[in-house]
Amino acid sequence: MTDLQGVGSPDLTSTDLYEKLNAQGEKVRTLKSEKAPKAEIDAAVQELLKFKVDYKTVTGQDYKAGCPPTNIIPNSNGPAVEDGDDQVDPWNVSTTSAKGVDYDKLIVRFGSSKIDQELIDRIGRITGQTPHRFLRRGVFFSHRDMQQVLDAYESKKSFFLYTGRGPSSEAMHVGHLIPFIFTKWLQDVFDVPLVIQLTDDEKYLWKDLTQEECYRFAVENAKDIIACGFDVNKTFIFSDLDYMGMSPSFYRNVVKIQKHVTFNQVKGIFGFTDSDCIGKISFPAIQAAPSFSSSFPQIFNDRKDLQCLIPCAIDQDPYFRMTRDVAPRISYPKPALMHSTFFPALQGAQTKMSASDPNSSIFLTDTPKQIKNKINKHAFSGGKDTIEEHRKYGGNPDVDVSFMYLTFFLEDDCQLQKIRQVNEHFILQFHQASVCGL
Amino acid sequence: MTDLQGVGSPDLTSTDLYEKLNAQGEKVRTLKSEKAPKAEIDAAVQELLKFKVDYKTVTGQDYKAGCPPTNIIPNSNGPAVEDGDDQVDPWNVSTTSAKGVDYDKLIVRFGSSKIDQELIDRIGRITGQTPHRFLRRGVFFSHRDMQQVLDAYESKKSFFLYTGRGPSSEAMHVGHLIPFIFTKWLQDVFDVPLVIQLTDDEKYLWKDLTQEECYRFAVENAKDIIACGFDVNKTFIFSDLDYMGMSPSFYRNVVKIQKHVTFNQVKGIFGFTDSDCIGKISFPAIQAAPSFSSSFPQIFNDRKDLQCLIPCAIDQDPYFRMTRDVAPRISYPKPALMHSTFFPALQGAQTKMSASDPNSSIFLTDTPKQIKNKINKHAFSGGKDTIEEHRKYGGNPDVDVSFMYLTFFLEDDCQLQKIRQVNEHFILQFHQASVCGL
Repeated sequence: MTDLQGVGSPDLTSTDLYEKLNAQGEKVRTLKSEKAPKAEIDAAVQELLKFKVDYKTVTGQDYKAGCPPTNIIPNSNGPAVEDGDDQVDPWNVSTTSAKGVDYDKLIVRFGSSKIDQELIDRIGRITGQTPHRFLRRGVFFSHRDMQQVLDAYESKKSFFLYTGRGPSSEAMHVGHLIPFIFTKWLQDVFDVPLVIQLTDDEKYLWKDLTQEECYRFAVENAKDIIACGFDVNKTFIFSDLDYMGMSPSFYRNVVKIQKHVTFNQVKGIFGFTDSDCIGKISFPAIQAAPSFSSSFPQIFNDRKDLQCLIPCAIDQDPYFRMTRDVAPRISYPKPALMHSTFFPALQGAQTKMSASDPNSSIFLTDTPKQIKNKINKHAFSGGKDTIEEHRKYGGNPDVDVSFMYLTFFLEDDCQLQKIRQVNEHFILQFHQASVCGL
Repeated sequence: MTDLQGVGSPDLTSTDLYEKLNAQGEKVRTLKSEKAPKAEIDAAVQELLKFKVDYKTVTGQDYKAGCPPTNIIPNSNGPAVEDGDDQVDPWNVSTTSAKGVDYDKLIVRFGSSKIDQELIDRIGRITGQTPHRFLRRGVFFSHRDMQQVLDAYESKKSFFLYTGRGPSSEAMHVGHLIPFIFTKWLQDVFDVPLVIQLTDDEKYLWKDLTQEECYRFAVENAKDIIACGFDVNKTFIFSDLDYMGMSPSFYRNVVKIQKHVTFNQVKGIFGFTDSDCIGKISFPAIQAAPSFSSSFPQIFNDRKDLQCLIPCAIDQDPYFRMTRDVAPRISYPKPALMHSTFFPALQGAQTKMSASDPNSSIFLTDTPKQIKNKINKHAFSGGKDTIEEHRKYGGNPDVDVSFMYLTFFLEDDCQLQKIRQVNEHFILQFHQASVCGL
């Protein structure tokens, strides 16, 4: 909660705040007309002023009675959100805690909902399948509107899945697989269509790469994504550099979104500055557009109202907070979301695995031998100072990277639990195994 | 010339200023090392500081020795340029002078070149045709790099034409025809391909219109444009809302341009603010892209180096100043330009004819009778207070709108000259004729 000068209502939408301001204004007028005690009027006015501060923070506009907010809410937390020492935005993820980002705090800060046991059980009930290990183990830990998706699904109203990847390197690493593995499971158990966006245009805009390189990475990455085993009849993978130039409907949605988002708003949400190129500034609309079924008339038979569910890592949430705010204003349904935690770097959960640092990552192109060497050489164990001490006192699975990787990839809960218990004493031995077989 | 705090060198490019700064820095160092008199060193330092101010104005960046300017020059005149009382930018044209905008001043301010008699004669010589009346009468009065286009043409290196229209209304007015009439003549005499962009996306972003309305206006306007009689085998007319979604090459060029222009720059050139939507902010790249032959691989057989010549009204120049600055940085040739004056509103040359004010405009859909009525009722004559006085003292063709229209549409120079002379005495009578037959 912000408590600078406002009431501290950053989780309220601009519309909520507008209504609160109207109500508070009405209250002040009533008190005045009833000649209430001055102290009471003053307190109400103070409250009104505080709401106005919040309103300005959230909308970037001054409150005017009779003029509802017309624009979207910048993330009240602003760009490059930091909480204690956690930083989580589409370009940076870091924390000082060896256990990784505090995800419970993130839920509060982002205003999303926890994926609790009840929701997990419901997914199991509806699909008739054991919930995926990523649900059982809190890898997908946060959501927006998932209950609504399930309500509709139970009334035979289907949905489609949308996920993506920014192709910044030829080889993907195991961390990149997390949303795809989970999305494949969702596609299997719900039997729904899926679109996968490869944002080669984004990578061209952000990185010192040519369009040809970014496009080639998109093609290479598509192969790894295809290898996850999606339903070939229900999956559409596209490069932005290709698809934008192949679909007037997609471009029309991009322009529609771009008309409804101001620079002030992307500044608030993504931290863009005046020195950023206009390509970056307008890009969020391109990542937003696949959230709407009308961007794919060839797949959805021109339907504009099909609900979208986006499984993604939580750092992508700013794009979809923006999307969800724009959606009702362009008469489209808001996409629902399921958020995953980050896949820890070999060096520890303080940062996520990053393709730009080869020593932090296990690539899909690495050989079993390379993987074994990387794990042995780089994987943080949080162990004791000497092998002898470590053998004697045991490891700490909460910070041990090898064990964390097992929580992502080892399906058998009992075996995982055993390893956890055994390795609280002897975790070192597992550093000497590789993750190749996982 | 600006003389606020800088040297007043707004017409210098960022690169020129960078070099001047390097030279001045060197001069200061030499003076110091030679232990020159303090006054002399101080003067040189003052000069250096002034150049730094200009550099910051032009580039939006601080000068750093060893770091050449990497970005484009915002128009040193900034947005919504005003000179005396003239305002000329893509969204506003106005002046307090009944004779219209001072175009000679505009040439100096925009840093373009005058289309002088020598250039007109050269065009006549090369094409073997009488130069178009728009050249003979100064309607197309300014250019960029036209000599270079002609040099290349004489060495058998061809070029292509690009012009366009923002379809903001169903009916075009006669003023809209000016660039098209001239472009048709250029196409005829040079026998070159032509692309015509209909910026329906721009109109959607700027106006309170739906995409469907803007697209429909584009289709309607295309009919009027086709009626100008372009070579059907050498002309490509496209709506942005369509073509962006049909040409990966076009989108790739748009993104390429968007990567090389910052918000600071479009702010400087177009006067955008933080409250503008991100669609507006990134749009200039879309108007820039047709300047490059690689945006139309289907027409130009994947050639990237074909020179472009853009005939347009001078208010569109900011888009192409930006384009010309970006071009060398993305390895494309700079487009050449020919600029026209504005077509005066019925009420007088203080503003251009505008479709949004029906009483200021003669539409292509108006009947001969409607046109006659509009001329008689609304056309500014600058005449005397009573018919009697006007008949006695004569009219002033320099401010008389009906006469101005004749300069645009009456081909015969002798007849025009006669009318001018006669009507310096009896111009009122011509108000009673209509322009239908023109």
